[in-house]
Amino acid sequence: MRLSSLSVILTLPFIAGAQRFVRFISTDNKEYYGDAILPSSTTDASKSKSARVITGDILGDFSITNQVKAGVEIPQWPILFYKPWTALNTPSDPIPVTAGYQTQGNFTSEMDYETELVVVIKKKAFNISDDEALDHVLGYSSGHDVSHRGWQIDRGGQPQPQYSMGKGADGWAPWGPAIVSTNIIKDPQTLNLWTKVNGVMQQNDTTANMIFGVKHLVSFFSMGTTLLPGDVIFTGTPSGVQLGKTNPNWLKNGDVVEVGLENVGTCTNAIKYT
Amino acid sequence: MRLSSLSVILTLPFIAGAQRFVRFISTDNKEYYGDAILPSSTTDASKSKSARVITGDILGDFSITNQVKAGVEIPQWPILFYKPWTALNTPSDPIPVTAGYQTQGNFTSEMDYETELVVVIKKKAFNISDDEALDHVLGYSSGHDVSHRGWQIDRGGQPQPQYSMGKGADGWAPWGPAIVSTNIIKDPQTLNLWTKVNGVMQQNDTTANMIFGVKHLVSFFSMGTTLLPGDVIFTGTPSGVQLGKTNPNWLKNGDVVEVGLENVGTCTNAIKYT
Repeated sequence: MRLSSLSVILTLPFIAGAQRFVRFISTDNKEYYGDAILPSSTTDASKSKSARVITGDILGDFSITNQVKAGVEIPQWPILFYKPWTALNTPSDPIPVTAGYQTQGNFTSEMDYETELVVVIKKKAFNISDDEALDHVLGYSSGHDVSHRGWQIDRGGQPQPQYSMGKGADGWAPWGPAIVSTNIIKDPQTLNLWTKVNGVMQQNDTTANMIFGVKHLVSFFSMGTTLLPGDVIFTGTPSGVQLGKTNPNWLKNGDVVEVGLENVGTCTNAIKYT
Repeated sequence: MRLSSLSVILTLPFIAGAQRFVRFISTDNKEYYGDAILPSSTTDASKSKSARVITGDILGDFSITNQVKAGVEIPQWPILFYKPWTALNTPSDPIPVTAGYQTQGNFTSEMDYETELVVVIKKKAFNISDDEALDHVLGYSSGHDVSHRGWQIDRGGQPQPQYSMGKGADGWAPWGPAIVSTNIIKDPQTLNLWTKVNGVMQQNDTTANMIFGVKHLVSFFSMGTTLLPGDVIFTGTPSGVQLGKTNPNWLKNGDVVEVGLENVGTCTNAIKYT
């Protein structure tokens, strides 16, 4: 998060008590990690104008993100795929769409949105159970799993869609605006999440409807694979995407997409042809 | 590569001339990067007993690997998926197979091998052409794309296989034993590659038969996605895997798999139930 208007009001050593982890540039033009202070009227961290600076290391061997996982819903087992870290984006910067993903001849630029609850890992997890899962979670955030259905499906070598080509381009994983601690969000399965495109609601649901809850996703993805501190898990999206509609309105150059998660805030990113 | 018997014979500044990049522990128990010296009878870097130490930084902002890409063959466009960096393995350590990938009840442990030419990226690549691709390549290596067909396909939410669950577990991407420079391998499409299981040849083909050559894979994967120095691309495997056979012999605990690439060397890793 780059909020140059966000002012530093005091420095606190990181122990307990930090609740909305943010990275920001303050009025002194320096970058800090901090605990965002919210106006009393909102829980949207993108509305905060000040923060307490965190001086310690929020994870021990913290790295902001080193891999991005995303799951979409199927009946029996979660589906896993990875985005490369070059896909990471801020909650406010544009989403670049380069030539190969734009409409060319008979190939339509089928750009689509997906709002998702994001889980950030706090400590290593390997072969853990559902019951242990939340002990390995730092907190939750709001994420946008940007998706190009043409490359994901039509050019994916049907009948096997290739998620990574359709979702892995530079900047196609905006998330933020804060990591809200498990101290605040004790139950991640009770949160509203939504998408607005140019201000119009397109997705509006609750994490209570997730087929696989956070506990099971974290434990399942730890099967044989070590989850590392700073890993970011996108957990799948509810209905309301353009994929599957009779007359889909694919995202166009200049469209502004807001994804949001209750008690966390919003990411607002414009589609930008480059 | 950890060859404690590998002795340091001299130190040379890294400029031109280094040809087989290796990482090793020398007789002084310290870790070095170096240029392996081969016995005159072989081009297999795993047979080297000494090396020149490289003191510089082989890439500028070198990182040993930060993402692993693998492509398998389909007619019109390459298929892309990612393994997490926790999948990286040496050319000699065991391949761990944890409980969830072992035979349990009606679920069979369908562990399979894939020998692949590996490409290591030297400098950033974004939207590059086929003709520019090799300028971004540091060199080539031999890789083993360890695959569990049950999780990749049967439990992948058919008809859409999920490559990452079936190929992404800890240690399921052995590669090495050296990165052989493009100064030595000027044409990557002329190399034999093979797999032996417990000494018996199972795959034996040439990179001349790859559907998509290295130049096109690197340029294709750079479409909208920045390839970074140290990125490792696994390029797909020839016929001879167990998948698709009438009576497949899936890999079992203790089986030893050797994958090899001409002019590079071999990776020899045992399947180890953990």
